[in-house]
Amino acid sequence: MKLTPIGIIHTPFKQAAGTPIQPSVADGAEGTVEVFPDYAEGLRDLDGFDRIWLLYWFDRAREPRMLVKPYMDTVKHGIFAVRAPARPNPIGLSCVRLVAVDGAMLSVADIDILDGTPLLDIKPYVPRFDRFDVERSGWLDHIGSHTGRADSRFEQKNNERNN
Amino acid sequence: MKLTPIGIIHTPFKQAAGTPIQPSVADGAEGTVEVFPDYAEGLRDLDGFDRIWLLYWFDRAREPRMLVKPYMDTVKHGIFAVRAPARPNPIGLSCVRLVAVDGAMLSVADIDILDGTPLLDIKPYVPRFDRFDVERSGWLDHIGSHTGRADSRFEQKNNERNN
Repeated sequence: MKLTPIGIIHTPFKQAAGTPIQPSVADGAEGTVEVFPDYAEGLRDLDGFDRIWLLYWFDRAREPRMLVKPYMDTVKHGIFAVRAPARPNPIGLSCVRLVAVDGAMLSVADIDILDGTPLLDIKPYVPRFDRFDVERSGWLDHIGSHTGRADSRFEQKNNERNN
Repeated sequence: MKLTPIGIIHTPFKQAAGTPIQPSVADGAEGTVEVFPDYAEGLRDLDGFDRIWLLYWFDRAREPRMLVKPYMDTVKHGIFAVRAPARPNPIGLSCVRLVAVDGAMLSVADIDILDGTPLLDIKPYVPRFDRFDVERSGWLDHIGSHTGRADSRFEQKNNERNN
């Protein structure tokens, strides 16, 4: 099970500290998704969608831990009950707004991803597949307000990149 | 960028033909997610969530193609504008209903995944991160009715598995 980057995500965020923790709190932050030429044909008809899922590699995440204290809480939860990057398979998932498609360059907004992050996949956001009413959102039902910005707790100390 | 399976997904679906194409049309189909012991601690507090994302490896998908005719349409679209398995990085994404957590075994419903599929990640479904109102869903805004069941078009012919 080996992955191949299909592009690079360009954003204003050079380090974890201060980066929005999710698209929904990114205040419209803008970025560009560069899809490599070999995959450009796969973008046909993507421009009809208002939102897209980006799947990407958390290339600057520290080693996985099973229990972590997420940005939005003060106690530890299992890594699979949070969205933090320090995961066994460090795959990120963000639903961003698709602003424009220009050849193999996508202009996106509401982005919460570090600059230079390797892109793994793009999927269309489809409400009938992705939009669910739920009663319970676990520990997130009981938290207070939060800045919506990350800090360095899940970032590698030496600024190396994982591959 | 190498992946490690963190578990196995058990479902009633032995082949693509007849398998629901998305959780939303799975009519409640039930399955079990077996998380390997090394990762069991990471499930702490997951049981508070009504729905979870499963990220998994499309291990029986045929080789990637940039243009594909999806199950729900009669014309070709770019692979990144559809949710079909024949992707450059064959990562599947499904939002299933979490029914119960028993140690490292999760009972889930609304499942649309082939039996024996390798599990890569679990993330909680959080409406404020994942639930968006959109105006446009591209080609999906213009299709007719569909059975909601897959056929064999994206399945490997020889029943081998990708790894």
